[in-house]
Amino acid sequence: GTLMEALLVQYRERIRTELDRAVDFWLKYSHDKQYGGFFTCIGKDGKIYDELKYVWLQGRQVWMYCRLYRTTERFCRPDILEAAKSGGSFLQRFARVQPADGPGKCAFCLTRDGHVVKVQRTIFSECFYIMAMDELARVTGDKEMQNDAERMMDQVVHWVRIDSSGLGRPPQCGDAPVNSMAVPMMLLCLVDQLTEGRAGLAGKYRELGDWCVTQILQHVQRDGKAILENVSLDGQELPGCQGRLQNPGHALEAGWFLLQYAKAQGDAELQKVAVAKFMDVPFLTGWDKQHGGLFYFQDVDGHCPTQLEWNMKLWWPHCEALIAYLMAYSHFREPAMLDKFTQVYDYTFSHVGKSKFNF
Amino acid sequence: GTLMEALLVQYRERIRTELDRAVDFWLKYSHDKQYGGFFTCIGKDGKIYDELKYVWLQGRQVWMYCRLYRTTERFCRPDILEAAKSGGSFLQRFARVQPADGPGKCAFCLTRDGHVVKVQRTIFSECFYIMAMDELARVTGDKEMQNDAERMMDQVVHWVRIDSSGLGRPPQCGDAPVNSMAVPMMLLCLVDQLTEGRAGLAGKYRELGDWCVTQILQHVQRDGKAILENVSLDGQELPGCQGRLQNPGHALEAGWFLLQYAKAQGDAELQKVAVAKFMDVPFLTGWDKQHGGLFYFQDVDGHCPTQLEWNMKLWWPHCEALIAYLMAYSHFREPAMLDKFTQVYDYTFSHVGKSKFNF
Repeated sequence: GTLMEALLVQYRERIRTELDRAVDFWLKYSHDKQYGGFFTCIGKDGKIYDELKYVWLQGRQVWMYCRLYRTTERFCRPDILEAAKSGGSFLQRFARVQPADGPGKCAFCLTRDGHVVKVQRTIFSECFYIMAMDELARVTGDKEMQNDAERMMDQVVHWVRIDSSGLGRPPQCGDAPVNSMAVPMMLLCLVDQLTEGRAGLAGKYRELGDWCVTQILQHVQRDGKAILENVSLDGQELPGCQGRLQNPGHALEAGWFLLQYAKAQGDAELQKVAVAKFMDVPFLTGWDKQHGGLFYFQDVDGHCPTQLEWNMKLWWPHCEALIAYLMAYSHFREPAMLDKFTQVYDYTFSHVGKSKFNF
Repeated sequence: GTLMEALLVQYRERIRTELDRAVDFWLKYSHDKQYGGFFTCIGKDGKIYDELKYVWLQGRQVWMYCRLYRTTERFCRPDILEAAKSGGSFLQRFARVQPADGPGKCAFCLTRDGHVVKVQRTIFSECFYIMAMDELARVTGDKEMQNDAERMMDQVVHWVRIDSSGLGRPPQCGDAPVNSMAVPMMLLCLVDQLTEGRAGLAGKYRELGDWCVTQILQHVQRDGKAILENVSLDGQELPGCQGRLQNPGHALEAGWFLLQYAKAQGDAELQKVAVAKFMDVPFLTGWDKQHGGLFYFQDVDGHCPTQLEWNMKLWWPHCEALIAYLMAYSHFREPAMLDKFTQVYDYTFSHVGKSKFNF
């Protein structure tokens, strides 16, 4: 017990230092004072090497600043709040491509001054827009901004559950609909976001949250020994590479959203499933026993995935794993979760900065 | 001289063995006897691990079989011709998604039985369709099939040079048109393909060929020291990652298409440029001096490319390099080209089969 706690205090100190360093870097170099919003292609020396503005990264940064501001005392600073507001206003002015017909689509990528470069035929830019607007509304108390987030959420749910034609992808007869983990996982994350501490909204999103849980649990396959990224709409394994695809980072993220949701609902059984299936299994299957690190993609039968980058060790699945295992440990106090956390942490921080590429 | 020739004979023998092994493998395992066309996701043991049919790979295989049949005596075999015909008829039946309004778009990906899974908003599936149909028409003498290839070519040229709206990508105000090397390079390859040995067609495609050459030469940048993948329509360097992107394999492929075209036109100056700029430069800039091998992508100023796979050593740019350097050597008999050829060959064949991943 005490040893564990001492260990955690040590790791928290190291993470705190990393976090301060990271926040300082982004505050110093990423703000576009001329056009608003944030630069995201920045060298180690702070030099901007590309000015394109990806909407999901803009949204993530607004969310990050606001979440830090709201939850961590040392980040409750006016410069952080101002930067978040400026990012939010850039998004509201430029991210939405069809503001006339309701909330509409968001762009995927904008020029520095906010002109649309590309629109993806998916829901993810819109999801990051929602995340940003909701978290910003929490720190500013701007009710209209919260409504903006909720309206966009209604639109996204409509595309996912009722009619996807507004996304702009023409239907093809060989393109059978798939339950892709990314979708219910992302929506559950947004349910967690929108309902946190708002008893009045919990009811509105309860049915959606339960639907997301059902959809996510369908990805537990192979007698509970694998989390598969794509399954059929009735929860069966799909043929081919698509059906055998595993994405350990996604599974861990899903685990952490499930655990949050289960906690909010007081669902003890779901909390156990979140850890046993979505945190233990991806470590068993996705950790590279030879060289360490989590694979980006894997084929459950050991074939070569078609994604060229499948065996790369990328920083973000490792961060997702750190969050998941810490969260699991804080719920259940199982030493096994802390072991996994330290293993991922030690691997990650012994590789970070060593390569221009994956870490 | 004689030593060089002896070396080449040795390499030819090794390549001949590899080629026989590869052709045997595809003849044995890739043919879909039930639905026609070819499987392309095949394990080393011959097991099919995915049944999707990518149109460009179907087209490439038809082309390959026909080119082998037409140019290499030991492959002039009825089973190879039959397989090519079966692949061609699969493509004619299933690849085109809008046969009613002229040649129309081709699908990017089909199910095993020919239903459309995905249509890309680019010209490349169509280009491989043209390549397949033209080469198949050459071995069968089917004039109507050659016309089919030419009609599709007219359609592709219309999308590229006159009006791209038929590709289905809505125009965006921040998405300025770009001269992307892939496009004129691919079209020049098709000009070489369609006009080879056909004096009557050389005139029809002459202006297009010259246009492709001009477009390709605009990618020579930085005082001739770099080949950049994307430039502006008036041949200037573009800002950001897109503008600094280098793709050594594309540059080498462009070099080989330029050399073929220059030879057909009797243009000695262009032959020199093809080698000096499109074969020497990508080796100087793209060869990994530390570990060997050609990078997939690079940033001309040394920033980290946004493509995760940028520093991978993939088999196909190495094959493109082998073809380019052999072709350059056969034109100019410069020992430097043979040196590069042997360096690429030795690297490639010491790594092939060592990893499930890049080789």
